[in-house]
Amino acid sequence: MSSGWGKNIRVSVFGQSHSEAIGVVIDGLPAGRKLDMDAIDAFMQRRAPGKTPLSTARREPDRVRILSGLSGGRLCGAPLAAVIENKDIRPADYTAISDTPRPGHADYTAQVKYKGAQDSSGGGHFSGRLTAPLCIAGAVCLQLLEDEGVRVGAHIERIGEAADKRFDPVSVSPSDFKAVSENALPVIDGAAAEKMALLIERVKSQGDSVGGIVECAIIDLPAGVGEPMFEGLENRISAAVFAIPAVRGIEFGAGFAGCLMPGSAHNDSYTVADGVIRTLTNNHGGILGGISSGMPVIFRTAFKPTPSIAKTQRTVSLSRMKQADITIGGRHDPCIVPRAVPCVEAAAAIAVYDSLLEYRKYL
Amino acid sequence: MSSGWGKNIRVSVFGQSHSEAIGVVIDGLPAGRKLDMDAIDAFMQRRAPGKTPLSTARREPDRVRILSGLSGGRLCGAPLAAVIENKDIRPADYTAISDTPRPGHADYTAQVKYKGAQDSSGGGHFSGRLTAPLCIAGAVCLQLLEDEGVRVGAHIERIGEAADKRFDPVSVSPSDFKAVSENALPVIDGAAAEKMALLIERVKSQGDSVGGIVECAIIDLPAGVGEPMFEGLENRISAAVFAIPAVRGIEFGAGFAGCLMPGSAHNDSYTVADGVIRTLTNNHGGILGGISSGMPVIFRTAFKPTPSIAKTQRTVSLSRMKQADITIGGRHDPCIVPRAVPCVEAAAAIAVYDSLLEYRKYL
Amino acid sequence: MSSGWGKNIRVSVFGQSHSEAIGVVIDGLPAGRKLDMDAIDAFMQRRAPGKTPLSTARREPDRVRILSGLSGGRLCGAPLAAVIENKDIRPADYTAISDTPRPGHADYTAQVKYKGAQDSSGGGHFSGRLTAPLCIAGAVCLQLLEDEGVRVGAHIERIGEAADKRFDPVSVSPSDFKAVSENALPVIDGAAAEKMALLIERVKSQGDSVGGIVECAIIDLPAGVGEPMFEGLENRISAAVFAIPAVRGIEFGAGFAGCLMPGSAHNDSYTVADGVIRTLTNNHGGILGGISSGMPVIFRTAFKPTPSIAKTQRTVSLSRMKQADITIGGRHDPCIVPRAVPCVEAAAAIAVYDSLLEYRKYL
Amino acid sequence: MSSGWGKNIRVSVFGQSHSEAIGVVIDGLPAGRKLDMDAIDAFMQRRAPGKTPLSTARREPDRVRILSGLSGGRLCGAPLAAVIENKDIRPADYTAISDTPRPGHADYTAQVKYKGAQDSSGGGHFSGRLTAPLCIAGAVCLQLLEDEGVRVGAHIERIGEAADKRFDPVSVSPSDFKAVSENALPVIDGAAAEKMALLIERVKSQGDSVGGIVECAIIDLPAGVGEPMFEGLENRISAAVFAIPAVRGIEFGAGFAGCLMPGSAHNDSYTVADGVIRTLTNNHGGILGGISSGMPVIFRTAFKPTPSIAKTQRTVSLSRMKQADITIGGRHDPCIVPRAVPCVEAAAAIAVYDSLLEYRKYL
Repeated sequence: MSSGWGKNIRVSVFGQSHSEAIGVVIDGLPAGRKLDMDAIDAFMQRRAPGKTPLSTARREPDRVRILSGLSGGRLCGAPLAAVIENKDIRPADYTAISDTPRPGHADYTAQVKYKGAQDSSGGGHFSGRLTAPLCIAGAVCLQLLEDEGVRVGAHIERIGEAADKRFDPVSVSPSDFKAVSENALPVIDGAAAEKMALLIERVKSQGDSVGGIVECAIIDLPAGVGEPMFEGLENRISAAVFAIPAVRGIEFGAGFAGCLMPGSAHNDSYTVADGVIRTLTNNHGGILGGISSGMPVIFRTAFKPTPSIAKTQRTVSLSRMKQADITIGGRHDPCIVPRAVPCVEAAAAIAVYDSLLEYRKYL
Repeated sequence: MSSGWGKNIRVSVFGQSHSEAIGVVIDGLPAGRKLDMDAIDAFMQRRAPGKTPLSTARREPDRVRILSGLSGGRLCGAPLAAVIENKDIRPADYTAISDTPRPGHADYTAQVKYKGAQDSSGGGHFSGRLTAPLCIAGAVCLQLLEDEGVRVGAHIERIGEAADKRFDPVSVSPSDFKAVSENALPVIDGAAAEKMALLIERVKSQGDSVGGIVECAIIDLPAGVGEPMFEGLENRISAAVFAIPAVRGIEFGAGFAGCLMPGSAHNDSYTVADGVIRTLTNNHGGILGGISSGMPVIFRTAFKPTPSIAKTQRTVSLSRMKQADITIGGRHDPCIVPRAVPCVEAAAAIAVYDSLLEYRKYL
Repeated sequence: MSSGWGKNIRVSVFGQSHSEAIGVVIDGLPAGRKLDMDAIDAFMQRRAPGKTPLSTARREPDRVRILSGLSGGRLCGAPLAAVIENKDIRPADYTAISDTPRPGHADYTAQVKYKGAQDSSGGGHFSGRLTAPLCIAGAVCLQLLEDEGVRVGAHIERIGEAADKRFDPVSVSPSDFKAVSENALPVIDGAAAEKMALLIERVKSQGDSVGGIVECAIIDLPAGVGEPMFEGLENRISAAVFAIPAVRGIEFGAGFAGCLMPGSAHNDSYTVADGVIRTLTNNHGGILGGISSGMPVIFRTAFKPTPSIAKTQRTVSLSRMKQADITIGGRHDPCIVPRAVPCVEAAAAIAVYDSLLEYRKYL
Repeated sequence: MSSGWGKNIRVSVFGQSHSEAIGVVIDGLPAGRKLDMDAIDAFMQRRAPGKTPLSTARREPDRVRILSGLSGGRLCGAPLAAVIENKDIRPADYTAISDTPRPGHADYTAQVKYKGAQDSSGGGHFSGRLTAPLCIAGAVCLQLLEDEGVRVGAHIERIGEAADKRFDPVSVSPSDFKAVSENALPVIDGAAAEKMALLIERVKSQGDSVGGIVECAIIDLPAGVGEPMFEGLENRISAAVFAIPAVRGIEFGAGFAGCLMPGSAHNDSYTVADGVIRTLTNNHGGILGGISSGMPVIFRTAFKPTPSIAKTQRTVSLSRMKQADITIGGRHDPCIVPRAVPCVEAAAAIAVYDSLLEYRKYL
């Protein structure tokens, strides 16, 4: 059941990198909304591979086909099922993997877990390709959140040492999201995009890769969403975000750096503005006790460098239990962070929409 | 249902800071094991308040009473229920909270969520006191993990700017845990303990507080534990760790810093040692694709500074919707990080034991 | 996790027949309602043992103590935890059970499942005594349902061959529930109560036991509650009702007998009455496609005869793997059906309240 | 989330009667087994419509296409996704339904629940057609159960007044299942099949329909499978079986009739045969305390008469809120019981396999 998630909606992802199709079933969606398929396609294009020299050469049209869940184009209450056929499959690229696991990938751990029966082709179910169905589910949740006035947006905060600005945690707004979307890479500061592009080109030319950080903001989420202890917004967002391959960390609000601050500086003072209670600063990242405060929810997610690199690496041959070298063919992103931005938005949207339904039970 | 967690075991925490009792029900435990009550008490003492001048003056014997789940001292298969009576209750200390929410606390968000019906006394269900039942559950899981040869240990990596060493991610062993336990504060480097103690005293004298980072290692977990996507070890550990109040971030292996590394350095090469596959380095923190690799699982958790501080702070009066000041009485830790160490171990133990049962289904 | 249930609320039952205490934790309850403790006590008295010569001689005051979840007597949003101390314990009565399992009880299956570590005293966690915490949860849900205008009532439809009338499935009303409560046994037809009492006395004098059927009605449940497929009202009510020991069957509306009817008679014609859509008959038992129709929900539950009887029975000695006789001491009801009536109401209330919260998410 | 089920495996069904496709995702399956597609197709043929004059004229090849979850034909640990394209769709047949709900169908309740956005065509997600994906999941679980030596089989016990024999609850064996499969209708007694066929023809000619009872046996399930209270075999099997449209009741072992028996007759005496503990009779239906005893698990399921009948019926016009008549076109089974037999086996297989995985955690 590990590939499904959610308490109020249930998102069930299926597929392998080279299976006939990948897809998602989303159960628990409210009936009535016209599903905006163009918006879904546009969202999918943001994570689609093969669009710039910076990303993998694999070409997939990633056409989303809805199998069920609609009636007359509107959500009808039945589970929404969507599939993407896998087209540009080249399994031969991966034949060696089953014996010589790629460092930094799930090849070895999957081999142990599934006793050799795993689909190792292209990373199988562990492939970054599985973020496509996650993004379908996210794109649907984003529409439903928008109907409630809630917006989700993310940007690359850092790739390696090339850093973007951060969202202003107090005043981040939809216009910030729009500005990000107009840059060549999704960043706030256009100059950062250039530095990042140069860095990616450089590591690519070295047969290497690089990681980065994505910052995400959820705005206009009403106060009171989320639950204590195990179902707080942090717990839910984390549970969804760690479904994205290569995520190694997450922090909310002032995060790790916040532990260096004195409490008197970290605590956000309350104020009343236009009859609404807000905080003057937002070190709490919009969440207190797992529950939204009405301030923007802010979190950052760390992505490791793409493990598939052109450089020859040391591994072992599982059949001979001896040291071996591996040179990875196939087509890979030297940096997955740009394509990870919509994935983070999708995971956040799923988690937040799930929490919003929980909240509505008690209204 | 937010105060319960787990798929294979279910840990249900209950209680408020000043309710008659706090406690936990743990369902799904295997039958047969003699429960070591002394070990549970010893574990509870590690998080107990009131033991050093560095922590809150609240005194609670925190005697764990088992109501059910045992037969002849052994786990009998029925849910294990344990309670701690609340003794040293002074609700009067908190009367002002319901109108003037404490900055950095859940007072305001709970007020909104529960429409004023929340128990605001002592933070109610959001109090750090609720980590006591979490620790009971953790102490039980630690015993069950030990039976499987798995050990969990944590230390303070940092309080404010006072930093400890890190565990060696490749070779951390039970003897490291033992060494940590013998210092005045749970650190690897005794000198760090002194710096931390001084820092805590200083912020206390200033009516302020400070946060920090706890590093945790899970060792001798077999390879193959954990699931893809939403039920990976990261997802589960995060879901449990964010149940601890004040946690603002989590990272695995090389974590946030790892995104600055080139993939060629971040990827951990495989090797064969004594017929076992291991990695030479451990930037992956013992987890690939959500599944354990057999290497130590390493993660770090960021704790914000205690929000309850003696200094006067700005808040609002909810009844008058106007700015107000608040001076917090009551008894509070200037730094909760030392007491958080066993809480992190407990959350990790619960998450890992739950994953281990999942793993056993497919053996 | 088998002793907890619910999607929107979570009811976690704990305890053994002779453990220190039994109890329940209920998470997910809405905040704000004043909990009517007198109503809970009155409800508990309906299932309490030892009140008439017809039931077990075990005497338990069954005082419900609330440990947490209230603030100022009102539900505060935190999990509600309630315990009943076990007082009248005589474990010695049961020493033989662990070797010679009682026919019709869970002694043998528990022994296999828990590999001999189960608490066999008094049936342990499988004892009918565990319906007391179920009834606490039910009593709480009944209050919450009443606030929404929904009422739940049950009666004994049959004990052995002594049959009561049935509720009128179209017009059953709270006054019917009141009438039932005023009889010596909870039946519609007072004459049936006499026949049942005589039958119970007779089987008791024979050292034997008898079973029966409980019919339950849920009235004024709005149309639209329940879900398709696996979360229909039938699925949820069944999942809760089979938690009561001795339940062997459940049927909704016209039930088993309905399969003898032609469709033209079984189908309930729609009509409009006072601007409300109703059906003229109610063979569908208020549920179509798992979803409430607005008509009374009607179901019947079959209880087997109490397995503990005074007559000597054939069993086996597990240690010697040879035939053995068993004569059961202890104190037992010759017929548990009268005390099962509030248990069925409790299970129904839990299931329906859980479904009602689900329904509210989409309003 | 109502269209998904399971704790250890998760079966997520999607589709509507006239959506592009229907299908199922099954997560949590063990890796390694070669999936026998011929066996799946053969199983699907048992529920397929359009094969005899006794069933609906709708023709669907019901070709199962596996989208993911296999590698080299073997289960690979990733979710198994399977779809059936809907071919023979005639939505025009159903245009009237959205205004004049069909008696005995979910048209009205779905209308209320989904506020008019439901897919009413062909019953949408509530159609009996959705048992096809349930049967795919069941066919997979049947193979996995067979690997463990567990067999599941069912037969028509009754259609209207035409009754078959019952399985011998003590000695039912795979050869009984084979004998059932060789009759024109799945019954034990060939003479019963003739009576049933005549009855179905008669009600069909009358524009009417008839219901019945399906009896199911699970054999060679080891003792110790199932859990106390809410996760007993009865709870799980019921939760799965009530997902089949038209099910109105379920009973285990001696069921409803058992409540007429004295306890001394209902209790099944233990015996030792060839070193194995068994019971001499099997009124307990192979389950005590929710846990398997090692005896055959026996349950019976009541199906209501098909609500779609040719006869004109009374309903209401929702738009005009006035009485109206409805004459149902479309293609319908006068008796769905024969096609329900594999559906019951499928639901049982899913529930039992889920419980078996639970059991394996504690071995």
